[in-house]
Amino acid sequence: MSKTTFFGPGPSQLYPGIDRFIQDALAQDVCSISHRSQAFKDIYKETADNLRKLIDLPDNYEVVFLPSATEAWERIVKNLVDKKSFHFTNGSFSKKFYSYSKDSGKEAINFSAPFGEGFDVSQAEIPADTEVICFTQNETSSGVNVPLKDIYSISEKNPEALVAVDVVSSLPIPAFDFSKIDTAFFSVQKCFGMPAGLGVWLVNDRCLAKAKSQEEKGVLIGPHHALPELFAKAQEYQNPCTPNALGIYVLGRVCKAMLDKGIDTLRAENEKKSTLLHDFIAESPLFTEAVEKPEHRSKTVVVANTTVPAGDLNKYLAQFDLNIGSGYGAHKLDQVRIANFPAHSVEVIEKLVEALKNYK
Amino acid sequence: MSKTTFFGPGPSQLYPGIDRFIQDALAQDVCSISHRSQAFKDIYKETADNLRKLIDLPDNYEVVFLPSATEAWERIVKNLVDKKSFHFTNGSFSKKFYSYSKDSGKEAINFSAPFGEGFDVSQAEIPADTEVICFTQNETSSGVNVPLKDIYSISEKNPEALVAVDVVSSLPIPAFDFSKIDTAFFSVQKCFGMPAGLGVWLVNDRCLAKAKSQEEKGVLIGPHHALPELFAKAQEYQNPCTPNALGIYVLGRVCKAMLDKGIDTLRAENEKKSTLLHDFIAESPLFTEAVEKPEHRSKTVVVANTTVPAGDLNKYLAQFDLNIGSGYGAHKLDQVRIANFPAHSVEVIEKLVEALKNYK
Repeated sequence: MSKTTFFGPGPSQLYPGIDRFIQDALAQDVCSISHRSQAFKDIYKETADNLRKLIDLPDNYEVVFLPSATEAWERIVKNLVDKKSFHFTNGSFSKKFYSYSKDSGKEAINFSAPFGEGFDVSQAEIPADTEVICFTQNETSSGVNVPLKDIYSISEKNPEALVAVDVVSSLPIPAFDFSKIDTAFFSVQKCFGMPAGLGVWLVNDRCLAKAKSQEEKGVLIGPHHALPELFAKAQEYQNPCTPNALGIYVLGRVCKAMLDKGIDTLRAENEKKSTLLHDFIAESPLFTEAVEKPEHRSKTVVVANTTVPAGDLNKYLAQFDLNIGSGYGAHKLDQVRIANFPAHSVEVIEKLVEALKNYK
Repeated sequence: MSKTTFFGPGPSQLYPGIDRFIQDALAQDVCSISHRSQAFKDIYKETADNLRKLIDLPDNYEVVFLPSATEAWERIVKNLVDKKSFHFTNGSFSKKFYSYSKDSGKEAINFSAPFGEGFDVSQAEIPADTEVICFTQNETSSGVNVPLKDIYSISEKNPEALVAVDVVSSLPIPAFDFSKIDTAFFSVQKCFGMPAGLGVWLVNDRCLAKAKSQEEKGVLIGPHHALPELFAKAQEYQNPCTPNALGIYVLGRVCKAMLDKGIDTLRAENEKKSTLLHDFIAESPLFTEAVEKPEHRSKTVVVANTTVPAGDLNKYLAQFDLNIGSGYGAHKLDQVRIANFPAHSVEVIEKLVEALKNYK
């Protein structure tokens, strides 16, 4: 790998050891063996087991592999919603989740906050017949976080509805109580520091029951990647079609490396790095906080308003082998995004802060 | 990579140099750069250009990346079929393509031949209002091939219909005249000898026009990976969501290596290896041809009836570092599948034939 450290919000810096994990996969013929072989099933099981342990996933969940988290939006909408879904939206990705439901012909209800702001979830009026309540726990476009207690409070008030949580760029940092939600999904190119091309969909038995009941009613939940088939195959450590075996293998190794380091250490380091970044923003003439309330600031994607576009800052940062992310969409020039992922060490965050302090 | 040569019908043997291409990708930060950057667009363009050149793809086609060829079935059905599709089926994969249409609520017409047999396409009665005619040019489950002239004759007789061709395990070996079809798709873990996790969808302007007209009529063609968005993004060397950048980069390098070798050489070698395998089957006490008519025998996935299951043969072949594929599904024990992909050299096919000749 080059000397550059990438702080883009994903794709981002690769987790230490990724090149070795890929070499090991090639040496062990992971990319040539049949995806129906016992050798492949063993790889799937190892990865699912390591992930389960890392995030404390209960037994009533299956670990399903998809090609991307984006696809998970469609799978959730098709499999779990017959008529009505409810969406907390405050940025590009939460809005896309909402529009996937609306554009699939469902009655999607939008509870929105302005870009860059969090929610007062107590104000959400969720109809009793809502089938799925959708959160984007970490809005990668704006750096806004939904505190877990807010998700749980909605979940507790709406026990009949399923709760779906987009954790694309936050897991495994937030310590979820998965018994209080029903499904979550992420992409590996964010906090897991991997090459893009693999999504992970965590689904519990309530979701499976809902998908099956939809199927029985004649609701079109497939044909591609219908949940009952995905779930049944996952129970055998298989996928319906040929999966990204290399990605599955590497994810298993990354989870193992994270387990060896310790999830508590990862989370403590995340807090420390988060403090370093926000303390710097508070004092910097370059930046101001893009998210006003501290409790709504993402721990993994730090977003700041900037007087200098990321493109120009990166020309300066290149001498230090550092590269940060630009703002999303319309905020490409007036915001920066700095990933605080497990692949970013405390030392490299300190180096970035130091370099940015000296920018003139 | 290990010393073993894999002849499974995909995942299969990796194309020579793949490990180096992956190392180069890591060294060049292909997995860390933003998928919206110029650097990524350059990679996409290079890969699309190399592929275009290799298979002689006309300018009215776009090269669209999907996570898998399986997903292409759903995209074709949703984007290109309002009411009626017509399917030539004679094995598991052609039947799945058919069932994707049927299970999407379309009127899917099934023109079937028995497993292991080709079609007499002159017998197909295709209704005038058929929107898409679907071929599985190389049926990976049974080793049956549809000759290109048969596809073209159907295409010429039905100029109003779009012609969709599954070339999952045959491209780039057949020399397609892409002006006689409208869309084709493949997976990279077959003839391109790559890790699984990337599909390529080749789509022409007629397909785009059809998808747009469906959209205007209110037919649900999305939300995920709707063709108008995929096509427009591909024109800018982009994907709607984060793609498998590593796979796209490696595919470009594999196409370049194939161009350097020469497509005519690859095709001539394929013929030579095919003859070696079929001459062996004709004389072998172990095997008999699974596909009776020579013109219907796949050039890339050779299938034979066997008296010894692949699992047992592989125990013997392990001493020579060789590994073949079992039969598909119900034929796991009574058939073998031997891939004849560009990654398999003439020498290694000779070695396999020699080893199998000496099996007792």
